[in-house]
Amino acid sequence: MDELRDLVVLGGGSGGYAAALRAAQLGLTVTLVEADKLGGTCLHRGCIPTKAQLHAAHVADSAREGSKVGVRSSLEGIDLAGVVAWQQTVVDRLHQGLQGLVRSRDIELVSGFGRLVRDAEGLAVEVDGRLVRARNVVLATGSKPRTLGLPIDGTRILTSDHALSMAELPGTAIVLGGGVIGVEMASVWRSFGVEVTLVEALDRLVPAEDPAVSKALQRALTKRGVRVRTGVGVASAEATTDQVTVELADGTSLSADVMLVAPGRGPVSSGMGFAEAGVALDREYVVVDENLATAVPGVFAVGDLVAGLQLAHRGFAHGMFVAERIAHLGGRLPTRPRLVPEHLIPRVTYSNPEIATVGISQAQAEARGAVEVVEYNLGGNGRSQILGTQGFVKVIRMVHGPVVGVTMVGQGVSELIGEAQASVAWEATPDDFSGLIHAHPTQGEAFGEALLALAGTPLHVHR
Amino acid sequence: MDELRDLVVLGGGSGGYAAALRAAQLGLTVTLVEADKLGGTCLHRGCIPTKAQLHAAHVADSAREGSKVGVRSSLEGIDLAGVVAWQQTVVDRLHQGLQGLVRSRDIELVSGFGRLVRDAEGLAVEVDGRLVRARNVVLATGSKPRTLGLPIDGTRILTSDHALSMAELPGTAIVLGGGVIGVEMASVWRSFGVEVTLVEALDRLVPAEDPAVSKALQRALTKRGVRVRTGVGVASAEATTDQVTVELADGTSLSADVMLVAPGRGPVSSGMGFAEAGVALDREYVVVDENLATAVPGVFAVGDLVAGLQLAHRGFAHGMFVAERIAHLGGRLPTRPRLVPEHLIPRVTYSNPEIATVGISQAQAEARGAVEVVEYNLGGNGRSQILGTQGFVKVIRMVHGPVVGVTMVGQGVSELIGEAQASVAWEATPDDFSGLIHAHPTQGEAFGEALLALAGTPLHVHR
Repeated sequence: MDELRDLVVLGGGSGGYAAALRAAQLGLTVTLVEADKLGGTCLHRGCIPTKAQLHAAHVADSAREGSKVGVRSSLEGIDLAGVVAWQQTVVDRLHQGLQGLVRSRDIELVSGFGRLVRDAEGLAVEVDGRLVRARNVVLATGSKPRTLGLPIDGTRILTSDHALSMAELPGTAIVLGGGVIGVEMASVWRSFGVEVTLVEALDRLVPAEDPAVSKALQRALTKRGVRVRTGVGVASAEATTDQVTVELADGTSLSADVMLVAPGRGPVSSGMGFAEAGVALDREYVVVDENLATAVPGVFAVGDLVAGLQLAHRGFAHGMFVAERIAHLGGRLPTRPRLVPEHLIPRVTYSNPEIATVGISQAQAEARGAVEVVEYNLGGNGRSQILGTQGFVKVIRMVHGPVVGVTMVGQGVSELIGEAQASVAWEATPDDFSGLIHAHPTQGEAFGEALLALAGTPLHVHR
Repeated sequence: MDELRDLVVLGGGSGGYAAALRAAQLGLTVTLVEADKLGGTCLHRGCIPTKAQLHAAHVADSAREGSKVGVRSSLEGIDLAGVVAWQQTVVDRLHQGLQGLVRSRDIELVSGFGRLVRDAEGLAVEVDGRLVRARNVVLATGSKPRTLGLPIDGTRILTSDHALSMAELPGTAIVLGGGVIGVEMASVWRSFGVEVTLVEALDRLVPAEDPAVSKALQRALTKRGVRVRTGVGVASAEATTDQVTVELADGTSLSADVMLVAPGRGPVSSGMGFAEAGVALDREYVVVDENLATAVPGVFAVGDLVAGLQLAHRGFAHGMFVAERIAHLGGRLPTRPRLVPEHLIPRVTYSNPEIATVGISQAQAEARGAVEVVEYNLGGNGRSQILGTQGFVKVIRMVHGPVVGVTMVGQGVSELIGEAQASVAWEATPDDFSGLIHAHPTQGEAFGEALLALAGTPLHVHR
């Protein structure tokens, strides 16, 4: 019989590998089971490939518009196969690094499709007939694209998996879903010269964001030539040999070369013995307590399996926390680990323009008490002017209290969210920033100016 | 006789206008005297024009190398007049904004060359025969390029003022000075296709930075085709009708179409009555105490006039501080203002690759006690891989103590310095970051990974 492991992790994506790495670091014996490739959705079909395509999109936009800044550049077209091949080299390099990291920490990696098993002897994960027994199990099987029941065929009607590995660019595209995935792919395709119609059933794009952000995004995308339709759902879709036609709920229809179905992602939790082993599910999500523990002692769940934000870095945080929690319960780690609260997890949409948000929304803050809000327009920020981007940095504080939320829109704001997050997480008041100076000219100054304005000492702000 | 003003500011650059804006905000009556244009060196001949050219350089590099990422872009050349014209539109827009801001705060703006005067009636600034009397004077006359006594002619032998407003690109260029200005212009010109030789008298580029940064920068610039000569000074230079020839101290000589003389900038402090009024000078810098006060009561100095870092945002901080100090001494501001310590001022070089630094150096930290250092290579950072940049994030902490210094090299690091600065300014320990998550995939994760490693809980680090 196999040795009893301290931990078996089912799924080698962001949440799973982070749990395995951290647990091994803490001295636990770890087996990591992955049916496909280490790194999961984020590395192979999500964050990294989309950001690679968004970078290629930026290169294309930049070359197309070089003459605006005196550069005689031109864009002859997009070699999509070349984009995908380059994207794959980035993925492969990171994949190799990750494999090396897992090897270096003495984690047993088992390739195969695993199922959770609980018998008289305890917990195990069954992989190709082998039972990996362990004191603790982390479920980290992630998520997959939702399809709204539409007839996905991979050539005309696509999920993001297909969209990221196409060999040829469509001339026209419909994107169903104005959330992060839909907006990012619409942005990429538009930069690549595709005629894009973006359809969102709710009344605005990125409906989880501040309404002002939705408005700025829609204005920017429209200016770039993306047709945006909000407040209308899809009734049905049909692919023919050379087109896809979608009937919308308002009786109108749209046709295009391809349609991306991107209403979001749902958990991968069926067919793997979860329910049978006693793990409670709610709308396919694994039900966990505040320590990410399931109803079955010793079984935890992390990442996209757990209802909430679907973000790789949330997976990392979940995985590390659960590993530390197991080590703590087992007496190997004296400090009780803390799980980062959901609202402190930064959220980024990497479209052009980008969106970055952390903390609670203005509406949530107003429900708590009196708030003060500054919206600093990037029009006053030198570096944003140089980059040719528009947008704003909005900082929300409780009156006489700390900064509780920051939301930003504009090219480049994704890299400003680190400082914003620190300010919210550390419950800084604007006065705490009075000893700080932002480098000139950076986009980060916009955050600094907003804080100065909130502290009552605006510098470059009309107030 | 004119009304006695609370404050007269001599010089409308970063330090001067910040003092005027903040003082007016605090209810002081303010006159601002500027001989040229509001905004000074930074806006018209420094930060903003260079960053505009660096952006155009980035656009050029990106177009030239598009095929690497599957984008069929090409670079036919640089329309330097077009670059300069665009750069001027950026400057003009910011200049307009600044003029509006000054107007909106009821600051009296006097155009003309001002001189400090101190007579029996007190302090004044004389402008074209008019005496502007004030209870307080802020000297903010800034700096100008040093020339090493070389025969600057503006066509073959240039200062940065000339380099930023050239009508035509040279084919070959010599850049004297491997500090911020020299490195930035060498970077721009190389991206624009110029054959560049960069000469630094000290033994390494950016000698104020960590030696590892100098090494990484030199490697990157050399890879880009910049010829770098360190450890050799200039003996003499001569311009002919179509060339410039420079004799180096080691007996060798170099010729090129143009030569940029960029050994740094020196204060503008002579011919304006400073010494005559009793203001002490040291090697042309105005001597001030820890509150930026000169030897003459009521006279302060800010920005590049004060020995130390020559940075626009230091000027902003100085100006705001002095305004608050004056208001505090006059009983208008209850809180005693704090001046940001020099080491907490972030330093950025915007070349390709960029350099960003805050806090003390490793050598300075080691002089204080035992330190722990993590250098996180951007090779492990997904977004940096996508951007195709190399470099590192180095974080220095005192053992069991706070983060005391951060230095970074690589494209994009200028926008990571905000969070780094907050961590150093707030004396955060790496554990303070354990509740923080960086968005994936951002370059900011590299800073996060370095902190995790310092906290003993590395995630994506081989350790």
